[in-house]
Amino acid sequence: MATAKPAKADSKKTDRKEQRKALQLEFARLQRQLLETDVSLIVLLDGWESSGKGRLMRDLVRRLDPRYYEASVIDPPTADETKNVLLWRFWRAIPRRGRIAVLNHSWYSELLNDLSVSPSEREQQLKAFRDFEKTLRNDGMVVIKFFLQQSKRDMKTNIKKLKKDPDRRFLVSERDEKQLADYDDYAKHFASILDECDAGGYGWTIIESSKKKPDAAAALTHVLQALGTKLQAEPDKKPEAPDKKTKSARPVSSLDLDEKLSREEYDRLKKPLQEEAGDLLYRMYTRQKAAVLAFEGTDAAGKGGAIRRLVADMDPRGYDIATTAAPDATERQYNHLWRFMRDMPQNGKLTVFDRSWYGRVLVERIESLTPESRWLQGYDEINAFEHHLVSEGRLVLKFLIVIDKDEQKRRFDARAEDPDKTHKLTDEDWRNREKFDQYLDAMDDMVVRTSTDEAPWIVIPGTDKRYARIAVLQAFVRQARDWLEKDEKAAQKAGRDKKRNKKAKKKK
Amino acid sequence: MATAKPAKADSKKTDRKEQRKALQLEFARLQRQLLETDVSLIVLLDGWESSGKGRLMRDLVRRLDPRYYEASVIDPPTADETKNVLLWRFWRAIPRRGRIAVLNHSWYSELLNDLSVSPSEREQQLKAFRDFEKTLRNDGMVVIKFFLQQSKRDMKTNIKKLKKDPDRRFLVSERDEKQLADYDDYAKHFASILDECDAGGYGWTIIESSKKKPDAAAALTHVLQALGTKLQAEPDKKPEAPDKKTKSARPVSSLDLDEKLSREEYDRLKKPLQEEAGDLLYRMYTRQKAAVLAFEGTDAAGKGGAIRRLVADMDPRGYDIATTAAPDATERQYNHLWRFMRDMPQNGKLTVFDRSWYGRVLVERIESLTPESRWLQGYDEINAFEHHLVSEGRLVLKFLIVIDKDEQKRRFDARAEDPDKTHKLTDEDWRNREKFDQYLDAMDDMVVRTSTDEAPWIVIPGTDKRYARIAVLQAFVRQARDWLEKDEKAAQKAGRDKKRNKKAKKKK
Repeated sequence: MATAKPAKADSKKTDRKEQRKALQLEFARLQRQLLETDVSLIVLLDGWESSGKGRLMRDLVRRLDPRYYEASVIDPPTADETKNVLLWRFWRAIPRRGRIAVLNHSWYSELLNDLSVSPSEREQQLKAFRDFEKTLRNDGMVVIKFFLQQSKRDMKTNIKKLKKDPDRRFLVSERDEKQLADYDDYAKHFASILDECDAGGYGWTIIESSKKKPDAAAALTHVLQALGTKLQAEPDKKPEAPDKKTKSARPVSSLDLDEKLSREEYDRLKKPLQEEAGDLLYRMYTRQKAAVLAFEGTDAAGKGGAIRRLVADMDPRGYDIATTAAPDATERQYNHLWRFMRDMPQNGKLTVFDRSWYGRVLVERIESLTPESRWLQGYDEINAFEHHLVSEGRLVLKFLIVIDKDEQKRRFDARAEDPDKTHKLTDEDWRNREKFDQYLDAMDDMVVRTSTDEAPWIVIPGTDKRYARIAVLQAFVRQARDWLEKDEKAAQKAGRDKKRNKKAKKKK
Repeated sequence: MATAKPAKADSKKTDRKEQRKALQLEFARLQRQLLETDVSLIVLLDGWESSGKGRLMRDLVRRLDPRYYEASVIDPPTADETKNVLLWRFWRAIPRRGRIAVLNHSWYSELLNDLSVSPSEREQQLKAFRDFEKTLRNDGMVVIKFFLQQSKRDMKTNIKKLKKDPDRRFLVSERDEKQLADYDDYAKHFASILDECDAGGYGWTIIESSKKKPDAAAALTHVLQALGTKLQAEPDKKPEAPDKKTKSARPVSSLDLDEKLSREEYDRLKKPLQEEAGDLLYRMYTRQKAAVLAFEGTDAAGKGGAIRRLVADMDPRGYDIATTAAPDATERQYNHLWRFMRDMPQNGKLTVFDRSWYGRVLVERIESLTPESRWLQGYDEINAFEHHLVSEGRLVLKFLIVIDKDEQKRRFDARAEDPDKTHKLTDEDWRNREKFDQYLDAMDDMVVRTSTDEAPWIVIPGTDKRYARIAVLQAFVRQARDWLEKDEKAAQKAGRDKKRNKKAKKKK
C-alpha cells in the first residue's frame, strides 16, 4: 500500500491554501480531459469512522463541474439492497465514461466492519472485489482507493466533539462507537485486509487523518498522478484469441439437430412440467432463493416460444422477462455488464434474460462493435460475473438453442407469410443470416470458454420446437429442484446442529 | 364505475376457451399497434386480497410479446420506498411510449387498506392520484383500473385453500387475514373510495372474482374497447395560451437588474450564511425533512456559481446536484416529469436541480420541441407535481436568476478568452442568445403561472454575481430555517398533546 503525500511540504498556512487551490484547478482541468478521452474515474473513500470522509469528499469535488461528477453515499446496505447480490448496488454506482464518481464507502466497507468474518467468506469477497475492479479497469476506468487512517486518541476527540453538537450528533453511529471501543481489534483487522489487497496487487492509498482534517492536497496529488499515468498509458496486452486450427471441441456446430418429439408425447409431458415449474417458483420464494436464466440462440431458434412455455404456469409476480436489445446511448456509457445488473432478481425471484451478456462475445464480436482485445477479455469478465452470482446463492442456467441454416430459412419464410408473425421478421434478420456460420463459430468458442461447473451451458437442438421446449422445461425443473433440495437439506442440517449445540450446552 | 362483461356469454367451456384465445390474439395485435402509434397502456389490478390478481395478470399477458410489456409487482412500500414521496415508486413503474405495464396493485392500494385514514389525508391522496392520472393521460397513456370484487365466502374458501398448500401458504399475508376478519368494514371502505373515484370521473372497472377465477375474458374485452376508442380518439381541447396583449404582469422582464454588492460586503456576509446553510442541512437530516431546489436562468446567468457557493459548506453526503441536459432517447420515451422523479431526495436529503422540469415551458416551447397544446398543459402538470412534493413535506424553492442581453454578451466574451472557461461556451449558446427575448417572455409566463404560495419563484437579478449569490444563500437560509422551525414546533406540540392525553387517561 502507498501513503499519499502532498507534492510539496510547505509549512505556511497561506502557502498550503494556495497550493491546494492550484491542485484543484488542475483537477478541474483533468476532469475536462476525462470527458474528451472517455476515461472514467472512481474514487473510493474508506477507513475509520469519524475520520473526516465527508470533509475530504467536499474538498475533492470543490472545483469540479457538477455536471460530470457524482458524490455517492454508500451507507450500510438497506433491507432492499441486501435482497440482491453483494456487488449489485456498487455496479449501479459506477460512473459513466468520462465522468468521476466519489463514494464515501467502498465495496470493502461491510467486510472491514465485520470482525467475525470467516476466512472462506473473506476470501470469497476479496476475490469478488478483485474481479470487479479488474472488469472496471479493463474498460479504462481508473480505480483509486483511499483509506483514512486515524489514531485512537484522535478518534476519541472527534467523536466527543461531534456528540456535543446537536446538529451533528447523528454522524456518530453505533459503528463509530464500536470501532472506538474495540480499536485494537479493528486496527488489526483493517491492517490484515489492507495487506492482502496489497499482496494481490490492488492496494489502497493511506491518508493520515490524524490532524483532524484528512489531507485533501495529498489525495488530490495522488489522483492527479494516477490519472496522468493512465491518460498516457499504453493499452494492456491482448488476451489470447481462440485458435481455430487447434480447436477441437465444437459443442455447438457438431450438435445432433435431429432430435424430435411427437405431438402426443409433447402434450403428455408439457403440463406436469409447467405445473412443477410453477410450484418451484413458489418454493424459491418461500426459501428466498433467486435464479438467473439466460437464453441465447440464432434468430428464429425459438427462444421466445420456449420462454413462454417455461413460464406459462408461473405466477407473474415471481418472475421477470428481461429482453436484451442493442444497448442505448446511456447504456453504452458503462461497462457492458452494467445494464444486466439492473435486472438481477432479488431473493425469491426469477429473471429470464431473452438474450444476455453474451452479446459481447457474439454480436459485438461478429459485427466488430468491440475491439478484439476487449471482447476477448469478455470471457473472463463473464465468468467472474457469473461466479459472483453463484457464490451469492443464485442458480445460474444458460440455455443455447441451436438450429441450422436451412431450418432458419424455413422459419423466416413462414414468418413472412403469417400476418401475425411477419412483424417478427426484419431486414436485420436477413443480414444476420449471412453470418450464420460466424455465429456458430462464436457460439462454439463461447460454450468452450464459459461453460463452468457452477454455471454450465445447456445446449439444446431446436429443429423440433416441441423437443426444445420440453428440453428447456426438463432442464429447469431438474436443476431448480436439485438446487432447492440441497438448500433445504443444508437448512435442516443447520437446524439440527443448532439443536444439538443447545443440548450440549445444557448438559454442561 | 363500470362492470367488465365478456363480449359473449357462451356457456360451453371449450367455447369460452376459444373465445379467450381469440381475444388474446387480438390483444397481441393491439400491442403491435401501440408500438406504431406510441400510445402506452397501464393496467392496474387492485381489490380484495386472495382474489386472484396473480392469475388475472398471467391471463392478461399470456400472448403478449415480452419485449414490450412489463408485469410489475407493487407490494406495500419497503423502508427505502417510504423515504420518498408517495408517488415516487409509481412514477418509476409507468410504461414507456408504445408499451404496456400491468401492475398487481395500484397507487390506491395503501389508501384502500387504511381503514383509519383521516378525511383530509384521504382527500389529499385522491387529489394526488387524480392529478397523476391526468398527467399520464395528457401524454396519451391509457390508464385502466380493475378492481377485483370478492364475496366473503369466496375469500374464506380461497384463503383456506392457499394455506393448505405449503408452497403457496406465503401468498396469504397479514393483510389478507385482516380483510377477511373485518370484511364488512373493508367492503364499506372500498365502496366509498370507489364511489368517490367514480364521481371524480376517474372510475374503476369492477371484475367479479366470485367463481374463484377472475374473468380474464371480461378484462380483455374491456381493455380492447378502451384501447380501440383511444386509438381513434381526437386529441383533447387545447388549454388557453398566455395572451400577450392582456398580459400585465411581467415579473421577469420588468425586474430591476442594477442591484449590487461590494466585495467587502460580500466577504462579510458569505461565510456565516454558508455555515448556516451547512448546519441547516444537518438539521434537515436530524428531522428527516427533504428539500428540492430548482435553478433556472438564461445561459451564463450564473446558476452554477450560485449553486457552488450555496453548497460550499454542506456535507456532500447530504445533497445531490442533478444537472439537466436535453432528455436522452430513453427519457424521451416517458412523460417529461418522469426523469426528475428519479433524482427526488429521500427524507433528510437535499437535491439541487441545475435546470429543471421547467424545460417543458422554456426550451421546449421556444424551440417547438413540443406541440403548443402539450406545453400549455405543462403549467398545470408542473403545479400538480410540485403540490405533491409540498404535500409530502418537501420544501420546494425555485430560483430564477436574470441577466440582460448585454450582460450575457459580456460574459460570453469573457468565457471565450479564459482558457479555463472557454469549454463552457458552445455554438448552442450563441444560437440560444438570438432567442433571448423569447426566453424572457416565456419566463414571464412561467413565473405568473407557476409561482404558488406553496412553491414560489424567487426571482433574482444576476448582473452582479456577488449580489445574486448572497441573495440565493439568504433566501435558502431564511426559508429553510422557517420551515424547520415550524416543523420542530409542530413536533413539540404533538409531543405535549401526547403527554396531556396520557395524563388525562391516568386521571380517569
